[in-house]
Amino acid sequence: MNVELINTGSELMLGRVLNTHQQWLCRRLADLGYTVSRQTAVPDTGPDIQQAVREALAHADLIFTTGGLGPTSDDLTRELIAQLLGRNLREDPAIVQQIEQYFVSRRRAAPARTRVQALVPEGAIVLPNPNGTAPGLAIEVRPNPFREGGRPSWLIMLPGPPRELRPMFLDTVVPLLRRVLPLEKEFICHTLRTSGIGESVVQEKVGAPLESFIARGLELGYCARTGQVDVRFSACGSDAARLVQDAEAVARELLGPFIYGADDEELEAVVVRLLTERGKTLALAESCTGGCLAHRLTNVPGASAVLRAGVVAYSNEAKREFLGVRAESLDEHGAVSEPVASEMAEGVRRRTGADFALSVTGIAGPSGGTTEKPVGTVFIGLAKPTGTLVRKNFNPYDRETFKQVTSNQALELLRQSILAESRS
Amino acid sequence: MNVELINTGSELMLGRVLNTHQQWLCRRLADLGYTVSRQTAVPDTGPDIQQAVREALAHADLIFTTGGLGPTSDDLTRELIAQLLGRNLREDPAIVQQIEQYFVSRRRAAPARTRVQALVPEGAIVLPNPNGTAPGLAIEVRPNPFREGGRPSWLIMLPGPPRELRPMFLDTVVPLLRRVLPLEKEFICHTLRTSGIGESVVQEKVGAPLESFIARGLELGYCARTGQVDVRFSACGSDAARLVQDAEAVARELLGPFIYGADDEELEAVVVRLLTERGKTLALAESCTGGCLAHRLTNVPGASAVLRAGVVAYSNEAKREFLGVRAESLDEHGAVSEPVASEMAEGVRRRTGADFALSVTGIAGPSGGTTEKPVGTVFIGLAKPTGTLVRKNFNPYDRETFKQVTSNQALELLRQSILAESRS
Repeated sequence: MNVELINTGSELMLGRVLNTHQQWLCRRLADLGYTVSRQTAVPDTGPDIQQAVREALAHADLIFTTGGLGPTSDDLTRELIAQLLGRNLREDPAIVQQIEQYFVSRRRAAPARTRVQALVPEGAIVLPNPNGTAPGLAIEVRPNPFREGGRPSWLIMLPGPPRELRPMFLDTVVPLLRRVLPLEKEFICHTLRTSGIGESVVQEKVGAPLESFIARGLELGYCARTGQVDVRFSACGSDAARLVQDAEAVARELLGPFIYGADDEELEAVVVRLLTERGKTLALAESCTGGCLAHRLTNVPGASAVLRAGVVAYSNEAKREFLGVRAESLDEHGAVSEPVASEMAEGVRRRTGADFALSVTGIAGPSGGTTEKPVGTVFIGLAKPTGTLVRKNFNPYDRETFKQVTSNQALELLRQSILAESRS
Repeated sequence: MNVELINTGSELMLGRVLNTHQQWLCRRLADLGYTVSRQTAVPDTGPDIQQAVREALAHADLIFTTGGLGPTSDDLTRELIAQLLGRNLREDPAIVQQIEQYFVSRRRAAPARTRVQALVPEGAIVLPNPNGTAPGLAIEVRPNPFREGGRPSWLIMLPGPPRELRPMFLDTVVPLLRRVLPLEKEFICHTLRTSGIGESVVQEKVGAPLESFIARGLELGYCARTGQVDVRFSACGSDAARLVQDAEAVARELLGPFIYGADDEELEAVVVRLLTERGKTLALAESCTGGCLAHRLTNVPGASAVLRAGVVAYSNEAKREFLGVRAESLDEHGAVSEPVASEMAEGVRRRTGADFALSVTGIAGPSGGTTEKPVGTVFIGLAKPTGTLVRKNFNPYDRETFKQVTSNQALELLRQSILAESRS
C-alpha cells in the first residue's frame, strides 16, 4: 500500500516551527503497518497545495493532509481539494451546531468566519473534533481521475493543531482505516538502541551475519544519533514476527553489552528504571557537563524518587565546598584528573548517602585545553557500594555535542555497573 | 528563485526520528532570502530518492538533499545522484587522507567501508566536513536534462548528522550560494526576540503602528516558541535595509523591556553576556527544573567564568544539606513555598559568594500536585546584592515544557534584575 503525507503551512517553509506531525503520524502509521513512502510540505498557497495533492493522488492509495482547515484567510485546504475533485461544498447543520456549542461552553462569542468550518465536500465523511472547531474530512476518490486506470485513493484531511489532530487520528481515523483499507499482510518493526559504538562498527558486527535474514525479506536500518546508534529490524507478511525476532536475537548476541534498550526508551529512562526496580539512589557531581546529566535524568517522570542531589561545580572552590575535594588533589593533579574525578564522586555519595554517584570533570572547550590535556579530555568517576572507578575519555567535539556524548558515556558506565552490582 | 529540500531516511518515514533539518535549513535559507517552496522526505531506497531528485530538478533552481552520504549500506544518495546525472564517481585522494586523519586524531582504526565517502561525482565541488567523515557535495546540473529548456539547477548534498550539516552549511554553503546563486534583490531579515509576553499581545502592541511599513513592502511575521515570541522583519530591494531598520526601531520602542535579544541570541547567552560585561557571578539552586537552568547556561561558551556553582536539590535533605534551608521552613510551609525558594537562593548565594543566585521550587508533575498547590505551581527566587525577591508562577504543562518555560522565567527575572542593579 502506498501512503503519502502532505503538511501545509507557510510557517513550515520559513522554518519558524518544527514539523512534529511528520514524525507523529509516520510513527503511528508505521506501527499500524501503513508505511509512509513520501512526505511533502508546501506553503499555504493554492497552486502549491493543489499540485501536491494532485501528484499524491497519482500514486498513493492513502493520503493525509494536515492543516488549513481552520477559520482564517490562509486556511484553504478544504476548498482547494473540493475544487480539485470537482465536488460542491455544502454546509452541514450538525457541524454548525457543534461549533456554536463549542463557543457557548467556553463562554465566548463565535467569530463570523468559524462557519466555513461547517462546509463539507459532497460525499465526504466528517471526522468529529472534540478538541476544536474544525472537523476532519475523509473522501474516497473513486474513480480517481489522476491515477492510472482510475484506481481509487482515500484522502484524509486533518486539522493542524497537534492537540486536535492526535486524538482525532487515534479515535476516528484508526477505526476508519481498519474498515476501509485493511492490511493484506502483517507488519513488524523493532529497534535496538546501542551506545558506545560507532555506526560502521555496528554494521561490521551485524551486517554479514544478518545477510541471510535480509535475503528472507528482513529490512535492516541504521540510524546514528549523538553517541548512539539505533538498529532497526522490520518485515512484512505472515513470517514477519518470527523473522524480526530471530534477526534481533542474532544482533543481541553480537552487540551484547552495547545494547541499552529497545524502541523508544532513552538511556536516561533505562537508568531511572534500573535504579527504581532495585530501590537504589543516585547523586551527581558535574563539572564540564554543567547540569546536562541532571537535566536528562530529571526529564524522566519518577526521577525524583532516585536522584538524591546533583552538584554543578565548575570552580575549584565549589569542588571543595560542595563535594569535599581536597585542595592538595586539585593543586597536585589539576581539576581535570583521575584523583579529582574520584573524590568528586565519593564526596557527593558520602554527603547524600546515595548508593551510586557519578562525577564528570573535563575540558568542554572551546578554550581551556593544554598540550597534555587537550579540549575534549574528560574523566568520568563512579562511586558505588563496591568501590570507585574512573574512566578517561577523549571527546573532541563542539560544546553541546561534548556534553551530550560525555553524559551518554557516564550514563552507560552507570548502567553497566548497576547491572554488574546486581549480578554479583 | 525556486528552492526545494529533500530529506532522505527510512527512519523519518517510520517516525523513529524527528526531522529537524527541515526547520533548521528552511530557517537559515529564509533568513538569507532563499525561501523554500517545497520540502520532501523519502525513504533510503533507490527509486524513491531518484524520483524525488528528478522531480525537484524539473522545477527548482536550487535543491538540497540531506543524509545518505555516510559509510553504511543504506547510504545511497551519492551513488544514486551520480547515476541519475550520468556522472562517474572517482575516489578523491585528499578526502581519503582526511578520513584517515579523522580516525588517527580520535585514536581509532578506520573501518574499511569509510572509503566510499571519498567517492566524488565528476564535476562536483567537495564541501569539507571538519566534524565527520562524509564530505558534502555541490553539483551544477547544466544543462539540466530534466528541466524545460535545459535550465540549470544547483544540487547540494549535505550529510545527515546535524552537528556535521550545520557548520558545513554556515561555513561553506552560504559563501558558495552567495557566489553561484546571488539574489537579484537585496534581502534583509531581522528578528527581535521577546520573553514574558503572549503572541496576541505582541501583535496588539506593534500591528497597527507598523501598518505603514507593511504598505511600503515590509513583511512582518510572528513566531511563538515555548514561553517566547519572535517578531520577524523582512524586506526586499534597495530600500530594504532602511525599511527593516526603521520598523525595528518602532517595535523596540513599543516592546521595550520584553525584548531580550535579536536574531539567534538565546536568553541564556544574553544572561551570560550581561554578567560577563559587569564582572558579576551567579549561583543556582534548582529543585523542579532539575538542572535545566545549569545545562542551558553552561551551553554558552564562557559560562564557567560567571557560574560559581549549581545545586540540584529535589529532596528536603538535599535542600538542608547543600543549601542550608531551615527544617522549620520546610515543615511549616512545605518545599514548594515562598520562604523555601527564598532560603534556597540565599543559601547558595552565601555558600558560593556569588553576586546573584536563582532558585526554583515547584511541581513539574505528572504527579505530586494538591488542590492548594496543583501541578504547575512554581516559586522562583532571586537573591542579589540589594535583597531577595520571589515570584509565584503557574505553568501547567507537560514535564519538559514545564522545565523550559520555568527556566525561561527564571532567566528573564535575572536579566531584568541585572539591568536594574546596574542602573541603580
